[in-house]
Amino acid sequence: MRHIISVLVENEAGVLSRVAGLFSARGFNVESLTVAPVGTGETSRITLVTAGDGPIIEQILKQLNKLVPVIQVTDLSDSPHVGRELLLVKVLTEAGHPERGGRQEVLNIVQIFQARVVDATPGSLIIEVTGSADKLDACLALLEPYGVADMVRTGQVALARGSRK
Amino acid sequence: MRHIISVLVENEAGVLSRVAGLFSARGFNVESLTVAPVGTGETSRITLVTAGDGPIIEQILKQLNKLVPVIQVTDLSDSPHVGRELLLVKVLTEAGHPERGGRQEVLNIVQIFQARVVDATPGSLIIEVTGSADKLDACLALLEPYGVADMVRTGQVALARGSRK
Repeated sequence: MRHIISVLVENEAGVLSRVAGLFSARGFNVESLTVAPVGTGETSRITLVTAGDGPIIEQILKQLNKLVPVIQVTDLSDSPHVGRELLLVKVLTEAGHPERGGRQEVLNIVQIFQARVVDATPGSLIIEVTGSADKLDACLALLEPYGVADMVRTGQVALARGSRK
Repeated sequence: MRHIISVLVENEAGVLSRVAGLFSARGFNVESLTVAPVGTGETSRITLVTAGDGPIIEQILKQLNKLVPVIQVTDLSDSPHVGRELLLVKVLTEAGHPERGGRQEVLNIVQIFQARVVDATPGSLIIEVTGSADKLDACLALLEPYGVADMVRTGQVALARGSRK
């Protein structure tokens, strides 16, 4: 089962390296990871997605809690949460020949996924899509036949639903 | 100056730890970092934002290129690019008293920033915003007075503009 783990850390040099090192040293798999400052930048939040059974996840959480610059560790998968990810994908379209199709179909997919075109040239579109990992996978699968030239995704971030902190 | 560096790596255990370790060992600062699989998952793309003068950045790029699981290193700041980031922010609103204000003003800010409400309870809203780091900072600053209970951001990802790969 996939777990989304949120780790609040002191924003000091080497903390990411220690968290990543903890995973690789124990052979725990990290599917995706993001780290960025929170608020005024004294702390950062690491969000990582990992797969594993209960006992493995429990061990991961314990080890993370023991690291000194770690303030708080939360397994968001334990309770209702909103998980979102951002995808940028560049699709090549036929320059100068809009009537040959492709571009309009791509724009239809953009609309279906409530995505946004963030760059356009006669021969290419860069599309921004946000949502669950599954939604981004579905969108990518639909765009693939039109020629995906490049892509990057952020990995998931998440917050607990409702008014809990 | 801020640099957005894109690193395509083999998706093998320990690669994130080695990249992060390279930065911490040399005292290079990482402002934000994301890593997620590309395509079918044999490779991953790490996007990191770091600050530094020309010679420091050049040294960083050289060191990254020397790491074995690294396939390609690109400094996207050298040329036109689209950089985007995702922010989830939870704002507390007064439950049961919509007429006392707060909630409507927050929804106005959502509209101004072309943001989306992704969770709503009588006492809280979770808002998803995408854009440049500056845009997200501006949105956060406007929401702050209404009571930000929690937030998480992904850090930037970026693609080169136009049809280049």
